[in-house]
Amino acid sequence: MGAIQARLPLFLSPPSIKHHTFLHSSSSNSNFKIRSNKSSSSSSSSIIMASIKVHGVPMSTATMRVLATLYEKDLQFELIPVDMRAGAHKQEAHLALNPFGQIPALEDGDLTLFESRAITQYLAEEYSEKGEKLISQDCKKVKATTNVWLQVEGQQFDPNASKLAFERVFKGMFGMTTDPAAVQELEGKLQKVLDVYEARLAKSEFLAGDSFTLADLHHLPAIHYLLGTDSKVLFDSRPKVSEWIKKISARPAWAKVIDLQKQ
Amino acid sequence: MGAIQARLPLFLSPPSIKHHTFLHSSSSNSNFKIRSNKSSSSSSSSIIMASIKVHGVPMSTATMRVLATLYEKDLQFELIPVDMRAGAHKQEAHLALNPFGQIPALEDGDLTLFESRAITQYLAEEYSEKGEKLISQDCKKVKATTNVWLQVEGQQFDPNASKLAFERVFKGMFGMTTDPAAVQELEGKLQKVLDVYEARLAKSEFLAGDSFTLADLHHLPAIHYLLGTDSKVLFDSRPKVSEWIKKISARPAWAKVIDLQKQ
Repeated sequence: MGAIQARLPLFLSPPSIKHHTFLHSSSSNSNFKIRSNKSSSSSSSSIIMASIKVHGVPMSTATMRVLATLYEKDLQFELIPVDMRAGAHKQEAHLALNPFGQIPALEDGDLTLFESRAITQYLAEEYSEKGEKLISQDCKKVKATTNVWLQVEGQQFDPNASKLAFERVFKGMFGMTTDPAAVQELEGKLQKVLDVYEARLAKSEFLAGDSFTLADLHHLPAIHYLLGTDSKVLFDSRPKVSEWIKKISARPAWAKVIDLQKQ
Repeated sequence: MGAIQARLPLFLSPPSIKHHTFLHSSSSNSNFKIRSNKSSSSSSSSIIMASIKVHGVPMSTATMRVLATLYEKDLQFELIPVDMRAGAHKQEAHLALNPFGQIPALEDGDLTLFESRAITQYLAEEYSEKGEKLISQDCKKVKATTNVWLQVEGQQFDPNASKLAFERVFKGMFGMTTDPAAVQELEGKLQKVLDVYEARLAKSEFLAGDSFTLADLHHLPAIHYLLGTDSKVLFDSRPKVSEWIKKISARPAWAKVIDLQKQ
């Protein structure tokens, strides 16, 4: 879900990637190619033909969620940047992929999906045998508990964390002024949510149990941005939350997402 | 997710049901029994022993979502009212079921779940062979599309619709004053979301395709409350949305949820 983008119709895609399409194999971070959109219609034997296409930008939290899942699942994909500065996300071609005019959208063969959390769940289930098992298909209890924490992220954590990241990070990027009252209110709400996380993570290493799942992964984008702000203390002051963040941020798949932002 | 309840720690459970536990068989609306909490420890051959227990109140949108699913799946269940006026949702016994101190929570044997949308998904999958098939397990495309619209409800529709119901319905119940500016803003946002629904429902009878799914069901509680307010025009002015609401509201399972509110 492009919550931040929804509020920022002029969200800028980084100029350096605006005119490029990325082709990735997630098996190695160095194993991806860039082709310019101009040559995209010409065939080339050196181009990895990926059936999975992601329409988005690597700075967007919702796109990052999908990219992290693709890397965890060791899937080849093509990242097609959406030029949000030019309003491409509100034009017909993109609206056909995502009728809300947000990013990301995913194409896998003839299947088109939007809403980042629906995309990641599709990838985890459709490619259950590939890469990291992000949703248990074997244990009813673990699967149901993963779903609980997927909903906690979407309903309790993200509404506060994303708005806080908007105040603390994205407003600055767009020359807007952070609202201290909003920050205070959001931090207060997020602290209460994180208190529940602290208690949960005292009982299990990851949110759904002893293994990393999609429920953990979904938190990474907003946490990544907030760790670069004064809100970092909310995480640092909770030992179990802090330990969990270190573990999930250290995953090679996540490092590839961050690398991608630097391209 | 008890979004409305989260903002209303003193949310009142209707006095008529406060001291009762309901035992239901969803196969017939008349087929349920009431026992008082005082006699709950005594065994009685006339009592239906249900392994599924729902902790919640029938007025809560999140509880209604779970109840509708149980009726659609034709599952027996026991509804255990949470006395929110007395703050029972913030006491240890309930926090052990739902650490966020919200309703509902579900027990199924030794499995405890919270977050209404995770509960409904569990019921739809665990009891896939019972009652209405709410999530297709056979068609990859329909399943993935159902997940997209489940996320649309949770991320695009509900954040506006629930807050609007809070302004228009629940504030009045609690002697609070509706904020006209908030109503105007929320209605503006909801209209944009409903425009996408109108276009979608011009292409398929239900959100995920030709069949009723959990994605449609999840919308019922907030729509139910908004239809009793001036916001009704947002739905009525969109022919396809209006037709869809008539269809999904007419389901016998939903009528049972509404009946339950009157007990």
